[in-house]
Amino acid sequence: MATNEVRIDAAPLKSFIQDVFTAAGMPAADAAMEADVLIWANLRGIDSHGVLRLAWYLEMIETGQMNPRPNIRTIKETPAVLYLDADKAVGPVATIPAMQRVMEKARTVGIGWAVLRNITHQGAMAYYAQMAAQADMIGMAIVCSPPNMAPFGAKAAGLHNSPIAIAAPAGKHRPLSLDMATSVAAGGKLWLAQDKGVPLGEGWALDAAGNPTTDAHAAGILLPAGGPKGSGLALMFQALTSILAGNPLITPRLNNGVNVHNQNSVVAAIDIGLFIDPADFKQEVDDTIDALKRLPRADGFDDVLMPGEPEFAVFDERSANGIPLPPGTLQKLRDASARFNIPLEIA
Amino acid sequence: MATNEVRIDAAPLKSFIQDVFTAAGMPAADAAMEADVLIWANLRGIDSHGVLRLAWYLEMIETGQMNPRPNIRTIKETPAVLYLDADKAVGPVATIPAMQRVMEKARTVGIGWAVLRNITHQGAMAYYAQMAAQADMIGMAIVCSPPNMAPFGAKAAGLHNSPIAIAAPAGKHRPLSLDMATSVAAGGKLWLAQDKGVPLGEGWALDAAGNPTTDAHAAGILLPAGGPKGSGLALMFQALTSILAGNPLITPRLNNGVNVHNQNSVVAAIDIGLFIDPADFKQEVDDTIDALKRLPRADGFDDVLMPGEPEFAVFDERSANGIPLPPGTLQKLRDASARFNIPLEIA
Repeated sequence: MATNEVRIDAAPLKSFIQDVFTAAGMPAADAAMEADVLIWANLRGIDSHGVLRLAWYLEMIETGQMNPRPNIRTIKETPAVLYLDADKAVGPVATIPAMQRVMEKARTVGIGWAVLRNITHQGAMAYYAQMAAQADMIGMAIVCSPPNMAPFGAKAAGLHNSPIAIAAPAGKHRPLSLDMATSVAAGGKLWLAQDKGVPLGEGWALDAAGNPTTDAHAAGILLPAGGPKGSGLALMFQALTSILAGNPLITPRLNNGVNVHNQNSVVAAIDIGLFIDPADFKQEVDDTIDALKRLPRADGFDDVLMPGEPEFAVFDERSANGIPLPPGTLQKLRDASARFNIPLEIA
Repeated sequence: MATNEVRIDAAPLKSFIQDVFTAAGMPAADAAMEADVLIWANLRGIDSHGVLRLAWYLEMIETGQMNPRPNIRTIKETPAVLYLDADKAVGPVATIPAMQRVMEKARTVGIGWAVLRNITHQGAMAYYAQMAAQADMIGMAIVCSPPNMAPFGAKAAGLHNSPIAIAAPAGKHRPLSLDMATSVAAGGKLWLAQDKGVPLGEGWALDAAGNPTTDAHAAGILLPAGGPKGSGLALMFQALTSILAGNPLITPRLNNGVNVHNQNSVVAAIDIGLFIDPADFKQEVDDTIDALKRLPRADGFDDVLMPGEPEFAVFDERSANGIPLPPGTLQKLRDASARFNIPLEIA
């Protein structure tokens, strides 16, 4: 742990976050869902999607971009598909129930696929994919927001670095849990570098003028992973979410300068039991992991890590020892503590 | 066109390929499907998935890895899901009808999702995704074969560089059509470099000992695009196809040295009309393309190309002027011509 970080246990931090969101106008049960998703990200070491987002969330509630008491509405429903308008709900408040509903559909017809329009920040998408994996399903989640990434060939933002999460259960091993942005680095990694006061990696980002930068404060435009591959995936994810849901987020920004946060999302589940005995599936995932870990290592590697494996290790460590908070993030929490008069207990 | 290449029109080349596959034991209608998918790839400039595969296909029919007269069987079916055993069918023979069936499901319940087990090489996966896009749907296709790519952190093959294709319709523009391997370069690009006698790009591949190489003949192991991202996607695609379908392809190779070609696949379609008027969807795709193309260019780029755009341009040119064949590919065709006594007409 960096010496300028303090540790705080997950339980009191979650309780604090829940209280802040309740004070900001959310029903207590909804605030608990939001707090759970944020703390889960911190526990897994995905601090970019953890409590450092608190100030931004509160600002979005204040400006009306995030609705603390949404009227979530089913627009269309079939045995396999769910199409929801989230009424600018705080992400998890619409997404957790949507994932539960597609899992019910998957149990009946093998797959459930939800499109959520007009939602706001959902946190770490692996949370939703893992809900399915815990129920012997393969889970998927995709989200698109306004542009923050340069399409391949451009030096200005034109696409969102839309992440995709896919999770599948294992047996003796932890689930396979991929959660990747289509950019070289996730956007929250820039925020985290700001909070930590450290430079960005080379090739992560451009400044507002389109020049490469490693200055976290100057960086404004992400770059796609694998050039045309990350760029192409991000565009197709826009088609599967924002354009399909009639809530485009690219053209309003690029053509009319609209600058609000909003997003559209897919969450989906496939029931393993329709195809194969889930016990056999999990045994084969285990065997695959074991076989991959026996491969000769590339230079500089002492393990072949599975998707999500580093995060599960951090989860265990932080569950035992608390969540480290860098100074910038801690200050955001202290600000919220003062504003809402909710005590923040630091060990 | 390289001076050592000859051009041949699509129609006689397709007819030749169909005749060869018919002579090799396939029903004429099945041979026509296979020829159409191969020639389509050549017309789009994806020569790595075109007729250069002919000799390999014939060899797989001879060795029993590819079944020219398969008994394709529906294992399970729900209103949304189709689960097929392809009986080692030549890829398109099972995949084209499967895509048609999931499109029917999508028309009824909004999505159709097929898992195909025990299939063989399907050619360019964009072919299937575009079938859906032509019917006002979003199409998807994923395939997994035995290992040919090093997982991130290893220097031996442990994953397939599983490609994913996603296509969505546009209005005045050509459809968006992503078709990408999860490796830096598609495997067929190595074959093409062999046929052309040119070196590989840096960072594409390792030799059998796990050392980096640009020698197309020495290269045996592909490298993942974006490091852990391409590697992670490839593993999750295995879970969605081979492991889910109870036809694992990684552990038999890594643990027991099994060396046969076989693959498992997903093809899926989502009906746009369930969510939004398809005319509005296509207008927004057009507007998005136009907005992205107006962005300032990165250094060295004079256009922001959409997924599939280069291939559509080559398609137009080759449809007019014929398909160029490098010497290695032409020799493969001449060999088949001699073997089956089917004339190959070169302009």
